[in-house]
Amino acid sequence: MLMHPECMLCNLNQVYRVINLMGLEEEVEKQLVSKVLAFLSEADYSRTNSHIMGETWKLITKEIGDPDPYARVKEKYNTLLLQAESELRNAILQVENSFLAALRLAVAGNQIDFAGRREVSFILKEVYHCMEQELVIDDSTGLLRELEKTRKLLYLGDNCGEIVLDKLFIEMIRKRYPNLTVLYGVRGRPVVNDVTLEDARMVGMERVARIIENGSGALGTVLNETSPEFQEIFKTADLVISKGQGNFESLSECRDQQIYYLLMIKCERVSRALKGPVNGLVCMRNPFS
Amino acid sequence: MLMHPECMLCNLNQVYRVINLMGLEEEVEKQLVSKVLAFLSEADYSRTNSHIMGETWKLITKEIGDPDPYARVKEKYNTLLLQAESELRNAILQVENSFLAALRLAVAGNQIDFAGRREVSFILKEVYHCMEQELVIDDSTGLLRELEKTRKLLYLGDNCGEIVLDKLFIEMIRKRYPNLTVLYGVRGRPVVNDVTLEDARMVGMERVARIIENGSGALGTVLNETSPEFQEIFKTADLVISKGQGNFESLSECRDQQIYYLLMIKCERVSRALKGPVNGLVCMRNPFS
Repeated sequence: MLMHPECMLCNLNQVYRVINLMGLEEEVEKQLVSKVLAFLSEADYSRTNSHIMGETWKLITKEIGDPDPYARVKEKYNTLLLQAESELRNAILQVENSFLAALRLAVAGNQIDFAGRREVSFILKEVYHCMEQELVIDDSTGLLRELEKTRKLLYLGDNCGEIVLDKLFIEMIRKRYPNLTVLYGVRGRPVVNDVTLEDARMVGMERVARIIENGSGALGTVLNETSPEFQEIFKTADLVISKGQGNFESLSECRDQQIYYLLMIKCERVSRALKGPVNGLVCMRNPFS
Repeated sequence: MLMHPECMLCNLNQVYRVINLMGLEEEVEKQLVSKVLAFLSEADYSRTNSHIMGETWKLITKEIGDPDPYARVKEKYNTLLLQAESELRNAILQVENSFLAALRLAVAGNQIDFAGRREVSFILKEVYHCMEQELVIDDSTGLLRELEKTRKLLYLGDNCGEIVLDKLFIEMIRKRYPNLTVLYGVRGRPVVNDVTLEDARMVGMERVARIIENGSGALGTVLNETSPEFQEIFKTADLVISKGQGNFESLSECRDQQIYYLLMIKCERVSRALKGPVNGLVCMRNPFS
């Protein structure tokens, strides 16, 4: 999906989130906002919003002199979800269709928002609530069928906190298909609250998958900006599970490759594109493959 | 209140509202958004947001070639509230303190939002709901005392629809103080959904007040942009009743003049400044007078 004029609001909102988090001086704030506005006024609409958000992020972090303003927030959410890991695993194992439960939980995790100061009990309540929701687009049967044929699965992570739920889903996948090789893709550099190598290690992802950095700092997976190694893995994977809207937006025009998009619809624009409501949970097969 | 970096979001949101209303082509939309972003990136923080919003509005209307994109929406809301006028007047007259009821109703009217497609019954429900709310800042006793001494009252209007409730409040004021001269200030040019001469005439404001245009197209009352005639009236009025956040933001540093601000708090910034919650109803005496 190419960038849309509405995406400017997301870019600009990110500036304010960082401003609020950092408690910057008003003069610095003004300068930062003006620079981002000037950048956005010339942004290239032939790119995806993931790409532009990556550039906006570069500008923000350069201006405030901190490459990873969300470092503590990300750590906090990883910790909170790790504390709940056993409880969540038990919840998955108790239901009849553990695979589907783990899938829904992973998609539900896509709504873990790092902006507020929320406690683990509250987050869990929301996650459980989402788990009970029907998917608004549900190609999970197709995904199961594909997994049967898959030898090499590339799973593209999205946000911190949520990564613990990815790990649980991958555990269930591997339990069902023990011969599967799973690679877990993380961003090459910190960008907003997206998962990096550090987060994957923090949650022990290496116990269920080989972690692979994509070499890029875009908010999603802008393939031609990723490393040759990552591109090779992407191309040769039998199946890609892509988590979150950022990965979807950057990969949505991807042809041929077998991809299943797992995401929560987070804006009007994606809502219109997918014909599903905002906050709807989605498991959708790449329509072009 | 001088413009704050957060105000950029309000300016930008206005662009999207007009885009949605007009159903513009995506190419025109991109150009318009880029131009507004470029303008905002160089906006002068030593001005008020009302001032900047007026400039943004000029840019939007010039670009789309329509000086008054909200014309129909404004007419619709005036009509809806006119339909409810008798019911609302009766509601005011039935309560013990009709002056306070009319005041609250006028402030409550400040929440009539033109963005949605809402029916009169729904609007009325919200207005009645607001009427029952306590004011979060309540200098209404002071306002009553001031009105007793006032010969010339300048009442600064804010939005369409709401103007009908201003008229009812002015009716109650005049009933209590029959010798009072009331002037009703409207914008000099169409700007967003703010009241102009046309709206004041549509609702029959001339029956209760002399209508005066301020000669400016700012979203509020940027005094040094208003006409000499308006400035003279402003200066010589014994009391000014200023409706809405736009008027407050542009006049809030005004010294000496006796002003009572009637508004609903609509953003975090004003919430912080007034130490009242967003959506809180306010009747506040100018702290500098």
